[in-house]
Amino acid sequence: MLVVMKPGATDENVAQVCRKIESMGFRPHPMPGALRTAIGITGNSGPLEPAEFETLPGVAEAIPVSKPYKLVSRELKDEPSLIPVGPPEAGVVVGGPELAIIAGPCAVESRDQIFAAADRVQRAGARMLRGGAFKPRTSPYAFQGMGEEGLQLLAEVRREFGLMIVTETIDPENCDLVEQYADVLQVGARNMQNFSLLKRVGRSKKPVLLKRGLSATLDEFLMAAEYILSEGNYNVILCERGVRTFADHTRNTLDLSVIPAVKAASHLPIIVDPSHGTGKRDKVLPLARAAVAVGADGLIVEVHPDADHARSDGYQSLYPDQFEGLMREITPIAAVLGRTTSFSPAELAARP
Amino acid sequence: MLVVMKPGATDENVAQVCRKIESMGFRPHPMPGALRTAIGITGNSGPLEPAEFETLPGVAEAIPVSKPYKLVSRELKDEPSLIPVGPPEAGVVVGGPELAIIAGPCAVESRDQIFAAADRVQRAGARMLRGGAFKPRTSPYAFQGMGEEGLQLLAEVRREFGLMIVTETIDPENCDLVEQYADVLQVGARNMQNFSLLKRVGRSKKPVLLKRGLSATLDEFLMAAEYILSEGNYNVILCERGVRTFADHTRNTLDLSVIPAVKAASHLPIIVDPSHGTGKRDKVLPLARAAVAVGADGLIVEVHPDADHARSDGYQSLYPDQFEGLMREITPIAAVLGRTTSFSPAELAARP
Amino acid sequence: MLVVMKPGATDENVAQVCRKIESMGFRPHPMPGALRTAIGITGNSGPLEPAEFETLPGVAEAIPVSKPYKLVSRELKDEPSLIPVGPPEAGVVVGGPELAIIAGPCAVESRDQIFAAADRVQRAGARMLRGGAFKPRTSPYAFQGMGEEGLQLLAEVRREFGLMIVTETIDPENCDLVEQYADVLQVGARNMQNFSLLKRVGRSKKPVLLKRGLSATLDEFLMAAEYILSEGNYNVILCERGVRTFADHTRNTLDLSVIPAVKAASHLPIIVDPSHGTGKRDKVLPLARAAVAVGADGLIVEVHPDADHARSDGYQSLYPDQFEGLMREITPIAAVLGRTTSFSPAELAARP
Amino acid sequence: MLVVMKPGATDENVAQVCRKIESMGFRPHPMPGALRTAIGITGNSGPLEPAEFETLPGVAEAIPVSKPYKLVSRELKDEPSLIPVGPPEAGVVVGGPELAIIAGPCAVESRDQIFAAADRVQRAGARMLRGGAFKPRTSPYAFQGMGEEGLQLLAEVRREFGLMIVTETIDPENCDLVEQYADVLQVGARNMQNFSLLKRVGRSKKPVLLKRGLSATLDEFLMAAEYILSEGNYNVILCERGVRTFADHTRNTLDLSVIPAVKAASHLPIIVDPSHGTGKRDKVLPLARAAVAVGADGLIVEVHPDADHARSDGYQSLYPDQFEGLMREITPIAAVLGRTTSFSPAELAARP
Repeated sequence: MLVVMKPGATDENVAQVCRKIESMGFRPHPMPGALRTAIGITGNSGPLEPAEFETLPGVAEAIPVSKPYKLVSRELKDEPSLIPVGPPEAGVVVGGPELAIIAGPCAVESRDQIFAAADRVQRAGARMLRGGAFKPRTSPYAFQGMGEEGLQLLAEVRREFGLMIVTETIDPENCDLVEQYADVLQVGARNMQNFSLLKRVGRSKKPVLLKRGLSATLDEFLMAAEYILSEGNYNVILCERGVRTFADHTRNTLDLSVIPAVKAASHLPIIVDPSHGTGKRDKVLPLARAAVAVGADGLIVEVHPDADHARSDGYQSLYPDQFEGLMREITPIAAVLGRTTSFSPAELAARP
Repeated sequence: MLVVMKPGATDENVAQVCRKIESMGFRPHPMPGALRTAIGITGNSGPLEPAEFETLPGVAEAIPVSKPYKLVSRELKDEPSLIPVGPPEAGVVVGGPELAIIAGPCAVESRDQIFAAADRVQRAGARMLRGGAFKPRTSPYAFQGMGEEGLQLLAEVRREFGLMIVTETIDPENCDLVEQYADVLQVGARNMQNFSLLKRVGRSKKPVLLKRGLSATLDEFLMAAEYILSEGNYNVILCERGVRTFADHTRNTLDLSVIPAVKAASHLPIIVDPSHGTGKRDKVLPLARAAVAVGADGLIVEVHPDADHARSDGYQSLYPDQFEGLMREITPIAAVLGRTTSFSPAELAARP
Repeated sequence: MLVVMKPGATDENVAQVCRKIESMGFRPHPMPGALRTAIGITGNSGPLEPAEFETLPGVAEAIPVSKPYKLVSRELKDEPSLIPVGPPEAGVVVGGPELAIIAGPCAVESRDQIFAAADRVQRAGARMLRGGAFKPRTSPYAFQGMGEEGLQLLAEVRREFGLMIVTETIDPENCDLVEQYADVLQVGARNMQNFSLLKRVGRSKKPVLLKRGLSATLDEFLMAAEYILSEGNYNVILCERGVRTFADHTRNTLDLSVIPAVKAASHLPIIVDPSHGTGKRDKVLPLARAAVAVGADGLIVEVHPDADHARSDGYQSLYPDQFEGLMREITPIAAVLGRTTSFSPAELAARP
Repeated sequence: MLVVMKPGATDENVAQVCRKIESMGFRPHPMPGALRTAIGITGNSGPLEPAEFETLPGVAEAIPVSKPYKLVSRELKDEPSLIPVGPPEAGVVVGGPELAIIAGPCAVESRDQIFAAADRVQRAGARMLRGGAFKPRTSPYAFQGMGEEGLQLLAEVRREFGLMIVTETIDPENCDLVEQYADVLQVGARNMQNFSLLKRVGRSKKPVLLKRGLSATLDEFLMAAEYILSEGNYNVILCERGVRTFADHTRNTLDLSVIPAVKAASHLPIIVDPSHGTGKRDKVLPLARAAVAVGADGLIVEVHPDADHARSDGYQSLYPDQFEGLMREITPIAAVLGRTTSFSPAELAARP
């Protein structure tokens, strides 16, 4: 059920509807929009009676929701959501006119490595740094990340470069630690339906980057986001990173058609990871261009200052020069869609 | 690296090799076999020198492992593993001549429901009861299970019927609770690469039922099991439950070819879930027959005493009469492969 | 539209309905059943008026067909179709109690090879011989078959061994030649939606073995069969041979769940090809057992007298001894489903 | 084997190598390049001796080919192939700086329909018209196209509008007719491995548009093209049109990563079909933009003057106004990649 308020409804009108919902044992989720506020209701197991709400002051109508997801739905909120990242003074927002560019190595490996990466990606126009401190690896014998020491290095990078930090959290307990350092909590593809983790990040104050699972349908992807919103955290950034198919010329098959499909169904922003989406360095640039052209709200790209000696994912990491080339190429494509980047050829040239 | 002992090697010979491995900072995993003991080594990041071990008393040879997985590999242990479930007096073993038959409802819903289910499946020859107390559901608004109350009901069922309890654990913290009640800890398909959970059940004393992820390759499936063994829990039962493909006549595509593939690569037993593997009640029986014929070590089947009113998965749950028919049909097929079941037509007829 | 005749309807009643249908510009397809005859109508582009037919003598009712396919549907004909192969005196029928066992090499390579293959598979209980004279190969540079010379060798085999011949036809023109020699016209997986070929074999007097395409849904598979029936050839044998998925432990993923799905939707028999379905010799036997257990009407298996030197598909061809083992193992499983094979251990032992 | 000529080799040098190859019973395929000519050899079943050729005048080296395909390979010809369509005076080339834009309805339905379509797509900058006269349909009862009458209408359109005609051929016999009318012979996705048809179009003088099969790997796709080239027709245009996966938010999953993969492996141009690739009208525009951004050589788009009443594929056909919008949006993206279109806003506005 979705309670849609009239354009002129007061805060008290909204509060009264919320109290009514709570009194019924359910949970209200007010979502202010440009023209009107809508209030989602969760916790009910069956349909509700519209008249219960339509008789309250300020209510325009109460409508049943036609999708299995509610809070992520365009039915609840028609305008795209803007997700602020970091402190307001950082001015980083996902879903707005400026593309969200997140770049950096697969994993934090050392102070030198992450500083070198940060320096290069920031100069090329990235506003956020990626880098894993806790790495979920297919093999128990593979490098699992530097742990808290890696998080501390990421915090240093933020202080030094002003880049916002995107890093992965791998279980509910681990989230207690990661949210002390991260600006964005990343939930990996393999954990897309780790519902305990989804609920935990749903109770965090930090925005969440939710990667699509390797065989997740659109509905399952949005339902995973719904888990997060239903716990009260509405700042979710979706991420397409390739799905698993029979095709063997790339490691995964990047499904760019999911971008317009998400935008039709949900108000949440969605970005693209062309690095995992292809698994091959020489495919990252063309697919990054395509992702911007299809209408993605940003990119998350693996860039390593010494890709040939990376401890993980080196074969799909861009060299820093390639990342600059990527920024150079996507910027005019973004302009065709009315969007911008922070890439500045002049500034890049001026730097040492 | 795999250290293979001579047939006549003593316990002290094995202990000496283990001490040597520990002194190098690695972890030894001795796996006694019918003819010889082999000792897996984990924790090393690069290749080791065979001569370090081949000069110790009782060692036949030290051989590098050719697969990404070590402890689950047939290279380490050539005979099939037998996994004891519950106390020795229960006499339940997975991987032996008797097929492991696990049956019961998707979720514990009430005392009446789970007792009725237990009664019917036990009479038909099941030795283990399935039933979820914590249910990972695609929707945050769907029934999530009865929680600890459900576990308590399962414990009652064990006392009353002598059935071993198979139930799901959904995160590391939750595992503390579930392992107090369960005889087998189930890790669901969506959690197959939830490495935090894999490590946690790897530190449990209880056997683990590990379901294949919806898009897991054979290597990824075995690597997930390797996570559990590498923590010291060697009692892992694998489970094929269907993979995700384009085919739409069943909910998932049951991949029975993975059974002989697992058996060629690993010593671990593998069972089949024809309920989730097809998602349709009328497909469960034929695919259960096929699973036994292909060489699976058992079945896990959803059976509900009142399937038409089940709170979850009702459309794929068998009616109890159908489950009896299933047991009746698989028993002679099992015999063709030299295997048995606990199904007894006479006993079934004699019961009230 | 489907016109269902009363149990006691006369041939003249049926003929009158057919004339009525033809007079409307459509095509009648009478399908006699055990209890009643049903008459399918094709050629209409929209729904018809039941009353047009229900007023004719002998008509029980005229019912719209709810599926995109009509003639292959269980709605038209509820009993399983029996497909006679070769002359009546051969006594070979697909879909009856005896499993249809088709065995032989991928391709006819020489007189010696095909005679040796025929000898061994016939002794083990096969009633039909497979062997390609025209081979559709992925590469234009690969062996494309012996052509008409291969067909002549197959005809010799039939005379010598009494085995019915199953061989592939690759285009409409080629069909003119192949149908002079073959007892069953095989349409390969890659041609499942080669509609010109489907129409051509639909005008043949010979039964057709239609293999499922690598990414065909159940509906597409049945619609391809419908093409053949709609041209007047009702003798179609379906064949599951694996579909394409992400799984890489077998060449294709054998989808055994399609067997009960086909049986629920259609009266046509369906057999299984575990050779192409797995692409690996050591998986053929277990999947053959599973195919029989799931309820398939037979098997088509690659057997080569000198598999290690086969010109194509050697790695998935059974050695003749393995094929005998297969027949030995599937026979008792068939018995569980009330079916038989022509395998006779005594006869096999008695042969030189 | 690939014989690479020296930069200064004469025509007679090339001819001598070709005669040598023919004298060995094989077939030479000379491929002139900007700097040098290379000569592919087909027909040999095993490796050849380089010295046989390296001793001939003008030969730089003879190198074995490392891929299963030869003639389509970049090893044979490093520069992109330019495929001329229609008479030279039409000036239509696929693979050059101007994007190849093919637009029009799924099927020719009537003179009015195809003329209206042609008028609109031509004004918006398309240089080629698509429209099926022979339609391969999943159902035998669906509209199968107007046949030769449709081809005649297409010929009229060419005369009237100067648009080059792209239309499908469905079997070898049918090709005799279609090549009399078409400028480009289209081979549909379902026929990608209809080798008889591939060989037939390989003997045509007309360029071929080869669509990727729904479950074709990159190697299979290129091998299908190799069939055409090996018959002597080097004018092949590849087309990505979506593959079949589990994803259900689009009818197929458009695999844009295959574009850079084809370009790395082959000299052939490749275009994208966002209409079949998504199956939904509202996804065509964003995926068309992405296809241009990823580096495709053009687009083939379904446009219908009255899409809501189309006899086939109406739900995925653009309205003519939408197609103009598409041309407007892709033109500046093409410019980022150094490419052009024939779209002219001024001209479009000036037309009545």
